[in-house]
Amino acid sequence: MNAYDDLIAFQRETEALAQIQGRLGWDQETMMPRGAAAQRGEEMAALEGVLHARRTDPRLGEWLAAAEASDDVAVAQLREIRRSYDRNVKVPARLAAEIARVTSLAQGIWAEARANEAVADFLPILGEVLALRREEGAALAEGGDPYDALLQDYEPETTGEDIAALFDRMRPRLVALRERVLGASRHPAPLSGHYPEATQMRLSREIARVFGYDFTRGRLDLAVHPFSSGSGNDVRITTRVNEHDPFNCFYSTIHEVGHACYELGVDPDFLLTPLGRGVSMGVHESQSRIYENQLGRSRAFTGWLLARMQQAFDMPDIDADSFYATVNRVQPGFIRTEADEVQYNLHIMLRFDLERALIAGDLSPDDLEAAWNDQFKADFGVEVTKPSDGVLQDVHWSIGLFGYFPTYTLGNVYAGCLHQALRDEVPDLDAALAEGHTAPATEWLRENVQRHGARLPPREVIAQACGFEPTEEPLLDYLEHKFGTLYRL
Amino acid sequence: MNAYDDLIAFQRETEALAQIQGRLGWDQETMMPRGAAAQRGEEMAALEGVLHARRTDPRLGEWLAAAEASDDVAVAQLREIRRSYDRNVKVPARLAAEIARVTSLAQGIWAEARANEAVADFLPILGEVLALRREEGAALAEGGDPYDALLQDYEPETTGEDIAALFDRMRPRLVALRERVLGASRHPAPLSGHYPEATQMRLSREIARVFGYDFTRGRLDLAVHPFSSGSGNDVRITTRVNEHDPFNCFYSTIHEVGHACYELGVDPDFLLTPLGRGVSMGVHESQSRIYENQLGRSRAFTGWLLARMQQAFDMPDIDADSFYATVNRVQPGFIRTEADEVQYNLHIMLRFDLERALIAGDLSPDDLEAAWNDQFKADFGVEVTKPSDGVLQDVHWSIGLFGYFPTYTLGNVYAGCLHQALRDEVPDLDAALAEGHTAPATEWLRENVQRHGARLPPREVIAQACGFEPTEEPLLDYLEHKFGTLYRL
Repeated sequence: MNAYDDLIAFQRETEALAQIQGRLGWDQETMMPRGAAAQRGEEMAALEGVLHARRTDPRLGEWLAAAEASDDVAVAQLREIRRSYDRNVKVPARLAAEIARVTSLAQGIWAEARANEAVADFLPILGEVLALRREEGAALAEGGDPYDALLQDYEPETTGEDIAALFDRMRPRLVALRERVLGASRHPAPLSGHYPEATQMRLSREIARVFGYDFTRGRLDLAVHPFSSGSGNDVRITTRVNEHDPFNCFYSTIHEVGHACYELGVDPDFLLTPLGRGVSMGVHESQSRIYENQLGRSRAFTGWLLARMQQAFDMPDIDADSFYATVNRVQPGFIRTEADEVQYNLHIMLRFDLERALIAGDLSPDDLEAAWNDQFKADFGVEVTKPSDGVLQDVHWSIGLFGYFPTYTLGNVYAGCLHQALRDEVPDLDAALAEGHTAPATEWLRENVQRHGARLPPREVIAQACGFEPTEEPLLDYLEHKFGTLYRL
Repeated sequence: MNAYDDLIAFQRETEALAQIQGRLGWDQETMMPRGAAAQRGEEMAALEGVLHARRTDPRLGEWLAAAEASDDVAVAQLREIRRSYDRNVKVPARLAAEIARVTSLAQGIWAEARANEAVADFLPILGEVLALRREEGAALAEGGDPYDALLQDYEPETTGEDIAALFDRMRPRLVALRERVLGASRHPAPLSGHYPEATQMRLSREIARVFGYDFTRGRLDLAVHPFSSGSGNDVRITTRVNEHDPFNCFYSTIHEVGHACYELGVDPDFLLTPLGRGVSMGVHESQSRIYENQLGRSRAFTGWLLARMQQAFDMPDIDADSFYATVNRVQPGFIRTEADEVQYNLHIMLRFDLERALIAGDLSPDDLEAAWNDQFKADFGVEVTKPSDGVLQDVHWSIGLFGYFPTYTLGNVYAGCLHQALRDEVPDLDAALAEGHTAPATEWLRENVQRHGARLPPREVIAQACGFEPTEEPLLDYLEHKFGTLYRL
């Protein structure tokens, strides 16, 4: 065996152990009895110790120095392994362990503070998490921008500057669209009726199948916060059920199916290697979003969905156009995870500005709530009256995820680009969607995005799929057209 | 930290990783999508590699040499760690890997051979498995008896000679009892009726609770072959459902609850240490069997069960005495896992004799089927007419489990002893069982057996609980009395 083969063999074992870690995470959210939590913490810590040792194993450095790539795939494998190794050896073991310890603690404190509407209870530990991540960012950046360094974990080859410029271009058009939609003279009604859990889950499974989810390599369960978990041939999804709002269940399912199909669609040759998974959070979110929004919330697909719901449920009379408007209803609201397509990105931009200032040291945790509320007033025109509607609503910062939020909007931007290219290449897509056939879209996405896994860098995989460099224009055009028509603006 | 503390800290991480391995096994049998099997194989191999490296880590030898025990518990911890380390370093890594590879292959070949009734298809790989395990036994025995060495993995401090003598004493009385019961003039009818799966599972959960199973630290799911999995605070059980035979589900549940309560009942101070689990397969089986048989199939408890079943199901009229007789029906049969209390141990003895001869080299795999069928004729009086009813019925040998079978009967013998002691100490137990209260029995077992985990050697924990050295007499007396009465012999 040469150095390259040794390296890949070692890496396959590491990836296999990382898959196990992911499966335990899935178990924790879906199956684990609650009394097992403390023991699970020890189990996860033991596995994390094994993984950390492997990811910083000095042999990796030796193999990387000696390995030669014989083709493009090998070049990409070495690029990904080197990125991960360089990153991990820059962070002292002491700091990595401290981050793990403090974020695990902080998540519980955050949950309690949110339940009690007590920002002050959360600020001390948030300060600790922030200090640790700033230290980590500085270690990773080696003199460069710490926020840019943190971003690389979620969206390689992107900078805070790039994102700030993108968001500056997007914000005015989104604020304007939002104001016009909310000021429209007619608004769709919410869906009424009662939708039993078992039927929602049955229909969710059908919808997952319709979007190409392979149940022989996955499964669908309930979780408090829906997620997708795993790579390769074991990619599981979860959804949630509200018996008065079936869209919550169905669109959570479609969203997670998008994530899962990305993982399931990667070239099987890359299984259990660094290329065998989605390349970035942004590209991942592009798949979940295009499945959920551009496809799932289209007029064509909602027509099929209404027909299936009418067969499955005892539901009020509603015509297909009204149902489409109801699915896409835009309403004022404080909560990111409940936001519609028009407002979602404004929630992200607010968080991006704040977290970038926190990492730069330009904003102190003590001033965070006021800064949040000011910006929310500016973007959304309303006052935040309780922290659970504002600065305490998301778990991310408590677990140290600084640099993660902007990938949601990057995903929407990429989805906009992919959707434009897809419509150009599959002009009769709506006819298929109206019949519940998503294959023309999902197969195009598998062929052009998903199968590449992490072989191509994020912007490159999107650019290659679309035939143009990704920009915000297609997304904004799509939103203005869709909601302009829906709200007769 | 001194050597003892270092050793225990290292061991805790190893035990935590072993718990993860167990959880993946559970997942594989209950939740895993079938298309994930090959990938899971790689994941399990990677984790096994980590565990094997830890279990043979040279630091263990150094710590063991330097460690000093400050109390009885520490003495027991060192005994268990030393046993495991000495065992693992005696087996060359090459041999351990080959056993893992061949047994994984052999299990599939066995399943196919059984489905096709084709013994000859299984013999070559059985020969390979046997040769590897004989080699392992010889390496472990260091000049001693290889079968005795293999036994230690399942039942420490027991020998083939001990078991042979025990079985020689038991066989004549069991053969005689079997003949008298089957020759009785009146036989109970089987249960008729249809018992829907969902109701069986609901009642199974209630029965599990009645036997003290803690659902905050476990869960109950379906599996093809019922099992219990895990130690400490995450001990999960499975059962199976046949809609025409609810006893299959209920008694599988009670059996697995017995195993699970043993693990859940261990002193929490031993969590994630070598003492934090059941001490042997025999003692484990004593718990599952006493829950299932001496308690669960008692006249008192079946009276309560009948009343609950009559509430839950639309079932035929049956009085409590007839129901008790039906639960304990003795019928001729070929299959160990379907055997009643009277015949079960005869199935085990046959396997013990054959596997001991195989390991000793006194029996060749080519002659195994004939030897099986001859002994079956001698013990059960009938001819085996197809291999799935005979030598191909059990998975054990295909996966290299030589030395495991006798622990089933040891478990029954221990259960017999524990039951005699329990009845002496809790004379009004039947009154409680008749009300569905098992606590007087299950708490006695937790106090006297379960909480010790692996602190005391197998025979010692039973002897200490009972106040006498374990023998076969209480089990045989119990069987002769119970079935003598039931069948009016």
